[in-house]
Amino acid sequence: MSRILIALGGNALGDNPREQMEIIGETSRHIADLIEGGHEVVIAHGNGPQVGMISVALEKEQMPLPECTAMSQGYIGYHLQNRMNMELNKRGIDKKVVSLITQVVVDKEDEAFNNPDKPIGRFYTKEEAEEVGRQKNYIMMKDSNRGYRRAVPSPKPIDIVEKESVKTLLDNGYTVIAVGGGGIPVAMKGDSMVGVDAVVDKDFAGELMAELIDADYLFILTAVDRVAINFGKPDQMDLERITVEEAYKYIEEGHFAPGSMLPKIRAAIDFVESKEGRRAIISSIEGVKGALEGKSGTLIYR
Amino acid sequence: MSRILIALGGNALGDNPREQMEIIGETSRHIADLIEGGHEVVIAHGNGPQVGMISVALEKEQMPLPECTAMSQGYIGYHLQNRMNMELNKRGIDKKVVSLITQVVVDKEDEAFNNPDKPIGRFYTKEEAEEVGRQKNYIMMKDSNRGYRRAVPSPKPIDIVEKESVKTLLDNGYTVIAVGGGGIPVAMKGDSMVGVDAVVDKDFAGELMAELIDADYLFILTAVDRVAINFGKPDQMDLERITVEEAYKYIEEGHFAPGSMLPKIRAAIDFVESKEGRRAIISSIEGVKGALEGKSGTLIYR
Repeated sequence: MSRILIALGGNALGDNPREQMEIIGETSRHIADLIEGGHEVVIAHGNGPQVGMISVALEKEQMPLPECTAMSQGYIGYHLQNRMNMELNKRGIDKKVVSLITQVVVDKEDEAFNNPDKPIGRFYTKEEAEEVGRQKNYIMMKDSNRGYRRAVPSPKPIDIVEKESVKTLLDNGYTVIAVGGGGIPVAMKGDSMVGVDAVVDKDFAGELMAELIDADYLFILTAVDRVAINFGKPDQMDLERITVEEAYKYIEEGHFAPGSMLPKIRAAIDFVESKEGRRAIISSIEGVKGALEGKSGTLIYR
Repeated sequence: MSRILIALGGNALGDNPREQMEIIGETSRHIADLIEGGHEVVIAHGNGPQVGMISVALEKEQMPLPECTAMSQGYIGYHLQNRMNMELNKRGIDKKVVSLITQVVVDKEDEAFNNPDKPIGRFYTKEEAEEVGRQKNYIMMKDSNRGYRRAVPSPKPIDIVEKESVKTLLDNGYTVIAVGGGGIPVAMKGDSMVGVDAVVDKDFAGELMAELIDADYLFILTAVDRVAINFGKPDQMDLERITVEEAYKYIEEGHFAPGSMLPKIRAAIDFVESKEGRRAIISSIEGVKGALEGKSGTLIYR
């Protein structure tokens, strides 16, 4: 029996509440396979499109980004715990699933604050972006070919405020949903922890959570079944298992796209290097069960 | 040492995120007094204005009401756990506070579904209300003198899906925030629990939670220091302690306003009658500590 942290992408959760509930229903079947196999599971998830939708809708109310992330934790967490509970009930597994509102501590001196590079919220034309940037004191950036968006910092998580309660629930047999959207970013200011206008990468937050609960496996889910080198080229090669040394070599050779596969590989390396015996798997949701048996996914080990 | 469930009103939490964080900071000091006194605390809270704001902002996305309540649990829960943790840290109390996304089971046959009487969301003129009601198949109602609003059912809670995890955390020394906004209402449909377009009264949800965690006290917070009979009249009399029999008599005599003090009294009676030794207190937030010593608030007992 292993302790597993699964980091789900927010992009894969659909564009509206109906779609999200449906997709999460499907996702829950795959995660329930692991729980039925006797494994302990913590679920982390992204929130890119969801926090974008919420922050745009509540723009007039000037809802700060940490509060929007908190809302997205409620929104996605509800769907996950509802469908996971249903799936486990159906199989006669007496395990309960619950979501915790989770705050993640970041360092105000993190260099990310000097270099906001994570696009969020709605798209603007170049002219609109200049206007909005001036008016709201936002930093704006070009995002793909669809236009300009607000850029916010994406600092590294250094601690998770609710780590103890996640551990307590896990030790008592619960499946826990935590660090949704990478967690609500907070930083020390005097004797307060205050929310900061930033978003934390869910793979790095999931990695830290996996360390803190002493997980055996970090599963990072993505759209492809396996990590590949020479991705999209005639000589593309899917990787079944790689050592951290090989992973470093492939990074250096530029095989992984920044903002896409690269942060996943980095989070996987961080986890594997954090303690003897820890392993990371990058896989599609469908491949999760097979990945534990080496039949799918890419294993990163040392 | 007692186990206490505190039900906070959503109306008392301010009109925007900045106000809410400030008011919750103040509220947290009073609740921390109880924890410092050695008591175990679960916090339930309302979400009337907050879920109204969220559902109006996400109208275009057709965000269902249960999802909006889930978002409000994240939004308010984050502020509560942030400020409560800060307050306990300051006092050197090694206790952690955490919010759980909470689903509350309601009965699809509850008569409330035939008689939606809880106003939510934005105000409309009479003409607008007729138009919106037709378009969206909403039932509309007059709410005070400010206009018309959507009316939704407010069924009684019959179970709380996450009760076990609340108990586990409480038994392990945590302060728990749960059933925010009365909980996300769900009902059985085949083998699924599906969200229903309704809102559950936070005092009744708090009362049920108090029963399920075997609390000693149910605290229902309100704007006044004590429950009164002949409220607002020359012969107004504040009540220090009343038996359930006296409470029934005062209800019959029409002393308590429906939609205001009446549901609080009813929730208090339900709790006191549920088991020998259980007591309910209706009090202002400032009076919470004194109420345990009989110096403030109204005690309902048998």
